[in-house]
Amino acid sequence: MPNAFLVKIDNNRVILDEHESVHLKVMRARPGERLLGLDGRGTLVDFVLEELGDNRSIGRIARIRRCSRDPYHVSLRVASTKWKRLRLVLEKSTELGVDSIVVFQSEYSTAKRTENSQGKCERVVREAVKQSVNPFLPEVRWMDSLQLEPSENDVFLFLDISGTPLKSFSEKISRSSRISIFVGSEGGFSRNERELLSVSAIPVSIGSRILRVETAVIVALSLVNSFLNRF
Amino acid sequence: MPNAFLVKIDNNRVILDEHESVHLKVMRARPGERLLGLDGRGTLVDFVLEELGDNRSIGRIARIRRCSRDPYHVSLRVASTKWKRLRLVLEKSTELGVDSIVVFQSEYSTAKRTENSQGKCERVVREAVKQSVNPFLPEVRWMDSLQLEPSENDVFLFLDISGTPLKSFSEKISRSSRISIFVGSEGGFSRNERELLSVSAIPVSIGSRILRVETAVIVALSLVNSFLNRF
Repeated sequence: MPNAFLVKIDNNRVILDEHESVHLKVMRARPGERLLGLDGRGTLVDFVLEELGDNRSIGRIARIRRCSRDPYHVSLRVASTKWKRLRLVLEKSTELGVDSIVVFQSEYSTAKRTENSQGKCERVVREAVKQSVNPFLPEVRWMDSLQLEPSENDVFLFLDISGTPLKSFSEKISRSSRISIFVGSEGGFSRNERELLSVSAIPVSIGSRILRVETAVIVALSLVNSFLNRF
Repeated sequence: MPNAFLVKIDNNRVILDEHESVHLKVMRARPGERLLGLDGRGTLVDFVLEELGDNRSIGRIARIRRCSRDPYHVSLRVASTKWKRLRLVLEKSTELGVDSIVVFQSEYSTAKRTENSQGKCERVVREAVKQSVNPFLPEVRWMDSLQLEPSENDVFLFLDISGTPLKSFSEKISRSSRISIFVGSEGGFSRNERELLSVSAIPVSIGSRILRVETAVIVALSLVNSFLNRF
């Protein structure tokens, strides 16, 4: 059950779309009830439900709060994998406040992009934002291959069991404003991908045991959040 | 598919039980094949499969390595919750090398212990140890209520959104040899449980967002592992 609803803000009203209207009904929400909304861009609103419709519902704003974004941008770049695991990756990284998620088709990815992939990913992220009451909806994108766009302000890290412990880069990370974490498929990165990464990305390890992709993502984001005091 | 098999070591042979024999068949392992075994108590063996049976299989040890345990004992004490989530908690904490897991019946737990609970939990932990090639099988226990057995060497922490950031205790944790992390049910801890905890446990927060229980467990263990240099 979501703890908050994703809304559009229009003057002193909030608008809830079809998807959210279904959730209102599932929750047996009634007009007059006070609920929590978020616009995904840093605004939290307490609103009173006024009209409950099939395609659209409307609420009156009772209280509005704006959260300011910290100066960091943390991006997760993860190889496409089985939906069961990718779903956990999207849910967990959203819970942990990641700013953007790029799912890329790795040369070793077994799961291929389909027409629905983008929409399926967006729905998971949307639910996770509501569940965790995260004021910022992360951006989700699919890419057909691993891509890096190096710039001076970016720190690129890729998870590699034989890399240097991620912890050693805590200062470097805390001094940077943009951090991207690359996570390969279960078979790791291909030779071509490794060559591409080796130009500008640092191999980092998060332990000697073999972690499932969703576990690795949570561990890496937990540590980066900790270095950035993003708690 | 497991990366390793759980074995019993008997002189220069390894014995695989019925459960492992099924896995050998699923993997289409053949006599003569070289495989990786672990005994759950710090020993890793490369073995050559000699006999493949229904109830018992046997291998000849080719190489044996013993991993020494570090001086820490990290214990997770988690409220019983829906099996889907508890399963993830068990799998993930084992991947992250936790030493023991206590599942307790919280006053707010919706999922109750059944006759199969202990066995189901042990199977998940067993598979996770094999998957992650973790040489140490964590102990799993069920308890009918929250219990604390304070001693001078223990640091007890409980996750609480209004607590002090876990990071502030990094030094305290790194100087301790026994750390227990208490995680409540989705509804948190009851009044009685909070009173019990308040005597000897420290409320710690791992962020301002609402995390699913399995996410909270991974974040907390990642940070504690990092403070202990357990990577």
